[in-house]
Amino acid sequence: MSESDSSSINHDALPGLMLRDEPTRADVECVRAIVSSSSFFNAAEIDIACELVEETLAKGQTDGYRFLFADIPDPRPHGRLRTIGYTCYGQTPCTIGTFDLYWIAVHNDLRSKGLGALLQKETEARIRLLGGRRVFAETSGREQYEPTRRFYVKLGYKAEARLADFYAPGDDKVIYGMTL
Amino acid sequence: MSESDSSSINHDALPGLMLRDEPTRADVECVRAIVSSSSFFNAAEIDIACELVEETLAKGQTDGYRFLFADIPDPRPHGRLRTIGYTCYGQTPCTIGTFDLYWIAVHNDLRSKGLGALLQKETEARIRLLGGRRVFAETSGREQYEPTRRFYVKLGYKAEARLADFYAPGDDKVIYGMTL
Repeated sequence: MSESDSSSINHDALPGLMLRDEPTRADVECVRAIVSSSSFFNAAEIDIACELVEETLAKGQTDGYRFLFADIPDPRPHGRLRTIGYTCYGQTPCTIGTFDLYWIAVHNDLRSKGLGALLQKETEARIRLLGGRRVFAETSGREQYEPTRRFYVKLGYKAEARLADFYAPGDDKVIYGMTL
Repeated sequence: MSESDSSSINHDALPGLMLRDEPTRADVECVRAIVSSSSFFNAAEIDIACELVEETLAKGQTDGYRFLFADIPDPRPHGRLRTIGYTCYGQTPCTIGTFDLYWIAVHNDLRSKGLGALLQKETEARIRLLGGRRVFAETSGREQYEPTRRFYVKLGYKAEARLADFYAPGDDKVIYGMTL
């Protein structure tokens, strides 16, 4: 991460923040807690998010699914680290240098501290090291996801496609793309 | 299939044609033969096509991956059926009524007989019965795939999105969509 990227992060708000690439068994429930904490994901989506961690633990990390976790110290005595956000990304099958950002989520208690942007930028840095040229992220066109769409645009992504009624009638899919 | 759909099929060219929904162990190699017979799919794609059949045989048919196979009698004495084309389709995860057409392929020896259109229409009929509203198919924007793109347009699909440099530099992804 460059100086300019890190300048937007409120380190005072998240003291002791650490990033981690390797998932652990505990992350299955951490991911469940994170993605359940907002109203952005439904039950089926939450299950899929957890299954991706489980599958990676079972098979080992593949090109298909990689993770980046954000931990902070738990302030309680003898408290462990608390995982407060993560991304799941991977090389899109049958492409050369294209990556999907499958999941990006920050615990609802800890939003608006710049952690989402940090995770996104750090994920892009890792994708670059892996030879990535293009990154795509998909989200809903519904009103509720306006903050998500603004988030991507702020980070330099463009809405490159909109598929009408994709998720459900009246619920379009918007595909955001970035050229690294 | 309605009368009007079937009228475009040259039954004389494919006597004894039969459709079948259940994959068998032999289909792994049938699919390999079919997708290898044209120059449309690369080695990684061919492996993925075969793995999808293997996975379905191992796990049983799921909503995620369904198949439709086209068989004709082998004219040799005691010849078995020969599988000459197929589709692989399934409900898109986390959607209500949206289906992906993952694969459609006809053996190169038996192209231009209307079998691709028949398979597509029969697949759409099955998707309708499963409550499908929308069908999407993805292909490359490269020159070589012009016949594939014309095929979708002829069957009523619209190019709803084009993602630049998706498969590789200079190789866009075009997403065709149909509302059933």
